[in-house]
Amino acid sequence: EDSMGTEFHVGVIPGDGTGPEVVAEGIKVLNAAASRYGFGLKYTTYDLGGERYKRTGETLPDSVIRELKQHKAIFLGAIGHPEVAPGILEKGILLRARFELDQYINLRPVKLYEGVDTPLKNKGPEEIDFVVVRENTEGLYAGAGGVLKRGTADEVAIQESINTRKGVERCIRFAFDITRKRNKGKKLTLCGKTNVLTFAFDLWERTFYEVAKDYPDIATDYAHVDATCMWMVKNPEWFDVIVTDNMFGDIITDLGAMIQGGMGVAAGGNINPEGVSMFEPIGGSAPKYTGRNVINPLAAIMAGAMMLDFLGQEEAAQCIETSVQKAIRNDLTSMDAGKMGMGTKEVGDLISRYVLEK
Amino acid sequence: EDSMGTEFHVGVIPGDGTGPEVVAEGIKVLNAAASRYGFGLKYTTYDLGGERYKRTGETLPDSVIRELKQHKAIFLGAIGHPEVAPGILEKGILLRARFELDQYINLRPVKLYEGVDTPLKNKGPEEIDFVVVRENTEGLYAGAGGVLKRGTADEVAIQESINTRKGVERCIRFAFDITRKRNKGKKLTLCGKTNVLTFAFDLWERTFYEVAKDYPDIATDYAHVDATCMWMVKNPEWFDVIVTDNMFGDIITDLGAMIQGGMGVAAGGNINPEGVSMFEPIGGSAPKYTGRNVINPLAAIMAGAMMLDFLGQEEAAQCIETSVQKAIRNDLTSMDAGKMGMGTKEVGDLISRYVLEK
Ligand SMILES: CC(C)[C@H](C(=O)O)[C@@H](O)C(=O)O
Ligand SMILES: CC(C)[C@H](C(=O)O)[C@@H](O)C(=O)O
Repeated sequence: EDSMGTEFHVGVIPGDGTGPEVVAEGIKVLNAAASRYGFGLKYTTYDLGGERYKRTGETLPDSVIRELKQHKAIFLGAIGHPEVAPGILEKGILLRARFELDQYINLRPVKLYEGVDTPLKNKGPEEIDFVVVRENTEGLYAGAGGVLKRGTADEVAIQESINTRKGVERCIRFAFDITRKRNKGKKLTLCGKTNVLTFAFDLWERTFYEVAKDYPDIATDYAHVDATCMWMVKNPEWFDVIVTDNMFGDIITDLGAMIQGGMGVAAGGNINPEGVSMFEPIGGSAPKYTGRNVINPLAAIMAGAMMLDFLGQEEAAQCIETSVQKAIRNDLTSMDAGKMGMGTKEVGDLISRYVLEK
Repeated sequence: EDSMGTEFHVGVIPGDGTGPEVVAEGIKVLNAAASRYGFGLKYTTYDLGGERYKRTGETLPDSVIRELKQHKAIFLGAIGHPEVAPGILEKGILLRARFELDQYINLRPVKLYEGVDTPLKNKGPEEIDFVVVRENTEGLYAGAGGVLKRGTADEVAIQESINTRKGVERCIRFAFDITRKRNKGKKLTLCGKTNVLTFAFDLWERTFYEVAKDYPDIATDYAHVDATCMWMVKNPEWFDVIVTDNMFGDIITDLGAMIQGGMGVAAGGNINPEGVSMFEPIGGSAPKYTGRNVINPLAAIMAGAMMLDFLGQEEAAQCIETSVQKAIRNDLTSMDAGKMGMGTKEVGDLISRYVLEK
């Protein structure tokens, strides 16, 4: 396929802490891939995050949402500032973007690369290779609920998980589609808690098995969320693709990041297949490493690869992934900040070089 | 302390599958401990579980609840029958007992014994030794919620987490008390999701820090549930006691069972400090091993030890635990069913012998 001439407009949110540093390396590598594969990338940077909030009280203004909607994709560094109370930036920027742009899928590949150390015994790249499809706009993240008699001995606080057929079904369909595209077991596991959350997961379970009829080539499986966490540690090879709700997805994807060797290469996509998707390294802003050229940019670089994949540049995405794998195998001494054997910028340079190699 | 002459009335629910087999060994060991430490145990067995449900449609009848309330404690095997739809027995028996008997604490020690294999690299008994205090009567387990337009494209399913100041506070106080009694870091970690579940965990967080004022000797910490799962795998040594809500507790205790080497020794207590508490191995009914004398009874035996501890027989409880540790170190070849190097009954005999040894 010849994509020569295509230019993609990407909104960039470097964000807080080490976000700008890893985004810079991500862009370096994206540009290398663009030049090799003959497409264009045009970036518009948005100043969002803790500093702006401290200055103006703004998190993600409506005007910026309107502008972001004009882009093909969004590349996000990290959100989180030590001087801003927890919750404000996460809700105001990250969750708001997910909801306003209807990014109803959170996609998290859990893949152990050769040369990366997992905390699990006797598990290698063969065993740790699955994908989590997390619903990203509903459930307990709806922000629904309330409090009665706050601050008294009679206080009652309610938090509601809201699940719609439409929201659940589109997520499950996406998961089946992804499963079909993968070359593993062609198995999709629903992760839930049907025996306790009988309202929410009755809808999930019914929808799951109804949609499954359209995918007779995909095997289906079910695991309670508690069992899922156990198997992720004990038998991660059992999983191909897992689909789950927003809250359980939040939990199992972080567990997944840990078994794939930590935040070093963990990237995620907030996907609206019909709209604007947002790609991010999931490691956080790591403020203490800011400006020291020591943070590991590979997760941001992998987020860039994921973005290219969703922009239809599969070859370029694959090339970045291969280059990252090569660097991990041959060059980096560790995935941890300050221990990589080279600086943040040097990692970006190295991957760019690998990407440009014939 | 001389407890000579004290007799404790214990309700026994052997339950399904291998439940009766492990309960038999648990009782064998309890009796050995009673004879050595000079107290009495009187058992009343209740026929609850899948077979009864199939026969009569009953799960946990009111009359049995009334009887159970007369006991000092309940010793439970396992609930779960392959021919009964998931949810019925769990909700009808296990959850119903927790709620009706107001067993508001679910207590789960996560402790790796010497000789037990953990799936985690470079972690040993020194690193894996903490306790989870799970709220056991509220949250998403309340069964609250509903469904609108079921079965249509417009269906909405809502599941509610209900949290009361009273319920949260008594759980948190229990957790602080347990932390004070332990000899580790004297640190209590609240596990929640304050940045997203802003109604529920606002109550939890406020209550936590208010109650903390009564425990100036205990260090407090907070971790999001997703981060908690990561640290449990990466740095379990960071934890001393964790307190959390019902749903998150369900998830992290199963993850905990896995890192302590599986269900082989994992016991839990459903505690009502002012009422009737219920102790159980948390491994499930494992129907395929039923009647084969191969299932590992150590978790049930440890549940018995936990029960004795709550009955004020700390020395006897300690003696059982020491005996179990000795057997794991010296005698058992594995924690897995059929691979222990001896049968279910022989394990019970062995531990009883150790308990009776001077
Ligand atoms: C920062 C936080 C609100 C967010 C979430 O809970 O979704 C994060 O943990 C994630 O998984 O992307
Ligand atoms: C069987 C099930 C209802 C139960 C729960 O979810 O509480 C179990 O997983 C547990 O942790 O005791």
